[in-house]
Amino acid sequence: MTEHFDHVPTIDSAEDRARYERGLAVLQAIDGGSGAAVMDALQDIAPALAHHVVAYGFGDIYARPGLDPKQRQLVTLGMLTALGGCEPQLEVHVKTSLNVGLTTTEIVEALIHASGYCGFPKALNAIFVAKKVFAERGLLPVQDHLTPEG
Amino acid sequence: MTEHFDHVPTIDSAEDRARYERGLAVLQAIDGGSGAAVMDALQDIAPALAHHVVAYGFGDIYARPGLDPKQRQLVTLGMLTALGGCEPQLEVHVKTSLNVGLTTTEIVEALIHASGYCGFPKALNAIFVAKKVFAERGLLPVQDHLTPEG
Amino acid sequence: MTEHFDHVPTIDSAEDRARYERGLAVLQAIDGGSGAAVMDALQDIAPALAHHVVAYGFGDIYARPGLDPKQRQLVTLGMLTALGGCEPQLEVHVKTSLNVGLTTTEIVEALIHASGYCGFPKALNAIFVAKKVFAERGLLPVQDHLTPEG
Amino acid sequence: MTEHFDHVPTIDSAEDRARYERGLAVLQAIDGGSGAAVMDALQDIAPALAHHVVAYGFGDIYARPGLDPKQRQLVTLGMLTALGGCEPQLEVHVKTSLNVGLTTTEIVEALIHASGYCGFPKALNAIFVAKKVFAERGLLPVQDHLTPEG
Amino acid sequence: MTEHFDHVPTIDSAEDRARYERGLAVLQAIDGGSGAAVMDALQDIAPALAHHVVAYGFGDIYARPGLDPKQRQLVTLGMLTALGGCEPQLEVHVKTSLNVGLTTTEIVEALIHASGYCGFPKALNAIFVAKKVFAERGLLPVQDHLTPEG
Amino acid sequence: MTEHFDHVPTIDSAEDRARYERGLAVLQAIDGGSGAAVMDALQDIAPALAHHVVAYGFGDIYARPGLDPKQRQLVTLGMLTALGGCEPQLEVHVKTSLNVGLTTTEIVEALIHASGYCGFPKALNAIFVAKKVFAERGLLPVQDHLTPEG
Repeated sequence: MTEHFDHVPTIDSAEDRARYERGLAVLQAIDGGSGAAVMDALQDIAPALAHHVVAYGFGDIYARPGLDPKQRQLVTLGMLTALGGCEPQLEVHVKTSLNVGLTTTEIVEALIHASGYCGFPKALNAIFVAKKVFAERGLLPVQDHLTPEG
Repeated sequence: MTEHFDHVPTIDSAEDRARYERGLAVLQAIDGGSGAAVMDALQDIAPALAHHVVAYGFGDIYARPGLDPKQRQLVTLGMLTALGGCEPQLEVHVKTSLNVGLTTTEIVEALIHASGYCGFPKALNAIFVAKKVFAERGLLPVQDHLTPEG
Repeated sequence: MTEHFDHVPTIDSAEDRARYERGLAVLQAIDGGSGAAVMDALQDIAPALAHHVVAYGFGDIYARPGLDPKQRQLVTLGMLTALGGCEPQLEVHVKTSLNVGLTTTEIVEALIHASGYCGFPKALNAIFVAKKVFAERGLLPVQDHLTPEG
Repeated sequence: MTEHFDHVPTIDSAEDRARYERGLAVLQAIDGGSGAAVMDALQDIAPALAHHVVAYGFGDIYARPGLDPKQRQLVTLGMLTALGGCEPQLEVHVKTSLNVGLTTTEIVEALIHASGYCGFPKALNAIFVAKKVFAERGLLPVQDHLTPEG
Repeated sequence: MTEHFDHVPTIDSAEDRARYERGLAVLQAIDGGSGAAVMDALQDIAPALAHHVVAYGFGDIYARPGLDPKQRQLVTLGMLTALGGCEPQLEVHVKTSLNVGLTTTEIVEALIHASGYCGFPKALNAIFVAKKVFAERGLLPVQDHLTPEG
Repeated sequence: MTEHFDHVPTIDSAEDRARYERGLAVLQAIDGGSGAAVMDALQDIAPALAHHVVAYGFGDIYARPGLDPKQRQLVTLGMLTALGGCEPQLEVHVKTSLNVGLTTTEIVEALIHASGYCGFPKALNAIFVAKKVFAERGLLPVQDHLTPEG
């Protein structure tokens, strides 16, 4: 394969592996294993993409101290709702949001908040992803302090 | 739960319920029941979102006299096609479009018109949602006055 | 330049020119000249794109009888609002909407309607494009029959 | 103007005005006046849209106790970055984020976090909006605890 | 049906059929039949859209000599990944990309490249579409020259 | 600042600087300096983002041998056109495309090709960015081999 630059990147040097391991520790601390299946599924087609999701996305970015994991998940829920068509990633991130300590009420509140910025269709798509995750975990119904029973 | 503002919104005051009822009457007049299932599915996760879709989306906005329901559906078909990833909502709105009196030919024409503005992929995604609805209602084939038989 | 297929498309055969002329007649009938400047600006960089916007977009699609021009503009206003970032095209289409007979109230109503589907930010971006066009034509303030004076 | 439903919505009943006033109090508590100019600019074209942004967006949604204002702003920064083309609204919301107590470091961190989900181009567009606001307020340079001086 | 312009477009004149035939020859040369099923599925709902996808998309545009088919597929893979929600079209275009001579490594590389511009979620959605196609054709695992075995 | 994970990422270790330097060499080889101004503008607000654009975007990804720079630019032109609202980045990448050897005809052809997938509005936005760059460099008019003079 032709090399186009003096530098040819690697993903398996000792340095690469250390970056990956640091990212993997972050990922495992927050996602409870739901992201690992995605990384595994990439191994026979794009292992470098799995490497970079972990090394860049979690090792370089997510681990930065500027925001705590609950804050990062709020930004992420907003982005995935707004992008649209990212239901598989939203499902992983609803699970991650629960794992880092956001309550079901906070997650739902973020998606209701989204309705004014992204419109009802995208907010509805996101809320039904959350409903699927919550149902699997026996977390329905979600308490809304503004409903009569709240 | 901490309150952050002097005002805490409700969804079950007499006033809220009246707004909801007005929206629900509009929704029922146009959608033939296809939206009700969506509202029901929200009850155990985000009843406030169901409230606002109905109270705001249909009571406050859809009922405004500036455009008639057929005109609103043309705008809506354009928006949902352009947004992409909103196939569930597009299915509801294809049904609603038929209910308020748009013909299958007009619905298809709106989606063909979309091709030049949103590109062929999004136009195709939308037309196949319409095809699913039309097939369920026995409305295929759609008459196109520009085809040889037209 | 290498040809990759047996067929090499043209834009200046008698047939191409006839298609273009038919599209141009449609464009001129609806846009009052606001689209012509765009077509002119393409001549030194992509005359083929100008050809296809006119021949395909207006000759093949817009002229189809399935929807009247006012209906097409409602779909178009919805699409351009939802796509986002298409303010130059939205400006042309607000002008075209006026030219084909939509009232300022109907145009504004379509953009208010958009708020529930696309969110407030995109609806606001669109309304301010409309405001610019209406201001240039002395069409402000817009009459809203739901305001106290209505 | 033809009415299409039994219910014709208003924006100036005592009830409407109360909802608007409640939303306005929320808006004024968080945005320090940057949103008011937008609402004013709507008065001669779509006062109903201004009404609904305030009454629905701030009175019905933003005031809900499920998330605090700093959390809502994190979701909002994520959404506006992901949507793209919403720089005017992002500018208002960077100001609002500062007003409700997010630090410049937290705002920047949210936009750096966005790079992995929305890509570098949208993250860069957002960061330059933040830079404009921070420069106007004398808040540059932003302290990043991961830079050598941090 | 009312005609709104002097010109009423057709899709079945001798001229239309010739344009269609030219586009169809291009389509058949590149897609190995995967697009034909889409065109067939349009016949009972929007034959005109099928006509224009073929006549405009392939006859007028794809056949232009300015880029070779492999180059066009690279642009197309980038666009469909960035648009999001176009998985059915991406599947057709991954197949087409293979048919015109892009290697699995080049296709994967284009999608890894997309991660920095569109974000990881859209890149992942695209890579899993490619994985489905490659699996069906026995093309897994994909050789990445940067992995240890490379 | 609270650290949320055992690992705290850096951008100024010897290893970080080496990754950055490798990316910078790639960037300088392809962009002729148009990207450097963007990186400089980030220094007082988000130097870490500049670091990652260079280290990840160019060092880790762009330098991979799977596609040559002209191929990467074709994918990139497609993505930036499809995303919309990324005109500043598109301007940098039109310049980069010229620098790595794409001709003005190839760049324009990619954007004409985009019309069928992204729609005319986004294709027009992109073509006018290209026109601005070409005009600054005295590269207009662009030769189109399908125009009469071609």
